[in-house]
Amino acid sequence: MIVGPLIERKRDGAALSPEEWSAIVAEYTTGHIPDYQIAALLMAVFLRGLERQELAALTDAMLASGDRLSFDGLKPVIDKHSTGGVGDKVSLVLAPLVAACGVAVPMMSGRGLGHTGGTLDKLEAIPGFRTNLSLAEARAQVERLGCALIGQTAEIAPADRKLYALRDVTATVESIPLIAASIMSKKLAEGLNGLVLDVKNGSGAFLPEVERGLELAKTMIALGEDRGCPTIALITAMDRPLGRACGNVLETEEAILALRGEGPPDLLEVTYALGVEMLLQGGIEKNTKKARKKLETAIESGLAAEKFEQIIEAQGGNPKCVEDPSVLPQAQAVEVFAATRTGVVQRVEPRPIGRAIVALGGGRRTVDDTIDPTVGFVITAKPGDKVLEGEPIASVFAKDADGIRTGFDALGQAIVIGDKLTQKPLKLVSHRVTRAGVEGLA
Amino acid sequence: MIVGPLIERKRDGAALSPEEWSAIVAEYTTGHIPDYQIAALLMAVFLRGLERQELAALTDAMLASGDRLSFDGLKPVIDKHSTGGVGDKVSLVLAPLVAACGVAVPMMSGRGLGHTGGTLDKLEAIPGFRTNLSLAEARAQVERLGCALIGQTAEIAPADRKLYALRDVTATVESIPLIAASIMSKKLAEGLNGLVLDVKNGSGAFLPEVERGLELAKTMIALGEDRGCPTIALITAMDRPLGRACGNVLETEEAILALRGEGPPDLLEVTYALGVEMLLQGGIEKNTKKARKKLETAIESGLAAEKFEQIIEAQGGNPKCVEDPSVLPQAQAVEVFAATRTGVVQRVEPRPIGRAIVALGGGRRTVDDTIDPTVGFVITAKPGDKVLEGEPIASVFAKDADGIRTGFDALGQAIVIGDKLTQKPLKLVSHRVTRAGVEGLA
Repeated sequence: MIVGPLIERKRDGAALSPEEWSAIVAEYTTGHIPDYQIAALLMAVFLRGLERQELAALTDAMLASGDRLSFDGLKPVIDKHSTGGVGDKVSLVLAPLVAACGVAVPMMSGRGLGHTGGTLDKLEAIPGFRTNLSLAEARAQVERLGCALIGQTAEIAPADRKLYALRDVTATVESIPLIAASIMSKKLAEGLNGLVLDVKNGSGAFLPEVERGLELAKTMIALGEDRGCPTIALITAMDRPLGRACGNVLETEEAILALRGEGPPDLLEVTYALGVEMLLQGGIEKNTKKARKKLETAIESGLAAEKFEQIIEAQGGNPKCVEDPSVLPQAQAVEVFAATRTGVVQRVEPRPIGRAIVALGGGRRTVDDTIDPTVGFVITAKPGDKVLEGEPIASVFAKDADGIRTGFDALGQAIVIGDKLTQKPLKLVSHRVTRAGVEGLA
Repeated sequence: MIVGPLIERKRDGAALSPEEWSAIVAEYTTGHIPDYQIAALLMAVFLRGLERQELAALTDAMLASGDRLSFDGLKPVIDKHSTGGVGDKVSLVLAPLVAACGVAVPMMSGRGLGHTGGTLDKLEAIPGFRTNLSLAEARAQVERLGCALIGQTAEIAPADRKLYALRDVTATVESIPLIAASIMSKKLAEGLNGLVLDVKNGSGAFLPEVERGLELAKTMIALGEDRGCPTIALITAMDRPLGRACGNVLETEEAILALRGEGPPDLLEVTYALGVEMLLQGGIEKNTKKARKKLETAIESGLAAEKFEQIIEAQGGNPKCVEDPSVLPQAQAVEVFAATRTGVVQRVEPRPIGRAIVALGGGRRTVDDTIDPTVGFVITAKPGDKVLEGEPIASVFAKDADGIRTGFDALGQAIVIGDKLTQKPLKLVSHRVTRAGVEGLA
């Protein structure tokens, strides 16, 4: 296949045909087009965009590149997807939680992308945890336990698997059509009865401007609904890290705390908002209030935490970590970071934190990098908090003193303390988007 | 080195610092940055451009990535560079010709780029011809014979070598700053006392619009003169193939004919125009008329052809090919293409011809492709020629009947015959560009 002229046309702003997209995806997936040509094409798509029919063709080609799941129909099958952010460990809490409420959740997640972590990396911080289940194993586990937490298998949208890894290292992540095609090709392969999207908004989101987040939400909703999968989206805040922990092991620990009812309030709030939508889509409850109550009860009763233990055990991990998170691997060096002045925390910028995790070895620079799961940050200060000079407001977890310095530099850059709040933090859950339109939330 | 954020900044239209360009070039050259990241960066540069200081830094970094030639100073050292076109075998005629007139020509050439061939591929059509001389060998040969025809050695601008191959297969060739940096980093490494640029213009040129050709010429002239190398450019026609032969062996044959005084007039005209500039830059002659006469005499006397024989022999090739081009490898299948109607040849489009050579196996699709040097076209019809239905106007050279069909399709597309000439062909040599400005030529 001669790819040059196709790259050239996209570069010059023309549309490729559905057949051309289909051929590109098929040939790339089978290794007949080298990475460097697709990297150039991706950058051309990033800067030139995709027309509606190109996006549909790309998504269908990615979906068609692999197998699709189907279930026995006994439970509603619903999944959630987040566009990703710093400290976003919602999946680890939400999947066991809604599974404990009677939804089947075949959750397929990704690895680190750019400055944000990936759910798989967090799960693999649990010793022994296998995310590489086959589709057959995942299907059986979902039918038995109501949930499996897996990576994108070689069988599902293999085209997306390759493209996702390549985009991560070629600065072609933050493209609405590429994000939409990537997410929806995987999710549509899961045999879902419904899908809830968590589209992040603010400086730490892939798409910091709310307008672009809404555009992405609408693009994905149209792709989903056109293909028979009811899809809704919530827009949630990513102008500061979600929760306190940032970094793989640290986030897994915090997710466990949340499942035990001890999680930070912002993490629980976002988790509940998404969980409510999943229970409603699945017909488990008829209204928001009842759905919320059901979720809270699942946590208070210990059922959600128990569900997570079952999942961990089924996937080869050490379920003791739910009772005692200290069995997770721990960083060599830990140091407390103190407020440099008395005042009000004006900002906790997610990007310097996310980049520092990569610099500490907790994220990927190239496709083949391995990561150190133990590094990261726990940041207790939130925008609006009053702090005193010398008061501990964060901790750095690193492998040595150099790492601690890197972490301190990042915290110094990320956490801005001033006399008063100059900018209101974003609403935690600001919009609800359906095919019918956008609803601002109170 | 973390390249992602640099790609991201260039993608978003910002400038990278000279130090960043320097680091990117150094790390890529030493294999510490993968091709796919640079492919994405190149596409971002293609679509976003480079600021003046970025271009200077990129060029200097590419130049600094390797060694530089220097000569004994006995002869003026002058080279020519063409931006490339279909049927452009000027280098093979010009280098021996001006060397026979007393100029030292350390000509370093490239391989096929996009739809155009490369001088190296044409030279290697001569059995045994070695283009991979070391710099020391090339230097010694230039001092002994006045000319060496070599590839970009691993020692000269290795950064450009890698980038050139990658651009070729990622649709990032036709970028003014990337072309300028590539050409000038190599040429400035040759230790020149002067440089003549042949910037092609018209539908078959990398930059079809004359304004962009002039911009490229001015960009390269500024880079050259700022670094102490007197540089001038001629703008020449590439709205039709140059000469009659297109394809590696076929072009080498035609170059040999030209050196023996039997070449097509357009090929000789462009060769003489460039040769005149080289003799003037080198102080060999004082005015255009005398310089032109000197070149004509070198051909008529047989000295130019003899110089080519010496060069071929010195570089391991079979010098008999100059006397008898039939010793060059020949295509398996040859077929004559006839005019489909009586009329006037309106156009002979270079691009379909160039693309067909690639399709026939005579050019590269990916970096590692090997080529079949024998395939191509001889097109005797020129725009403005009157032809009769059934009159032979071209030949296809291929490896089998399938190739002949491919070639016929391309000729049918490229050669347009109508009632009368609707568009005047471009002037063969239309402008002369110096640092002082642009001069239209009579």
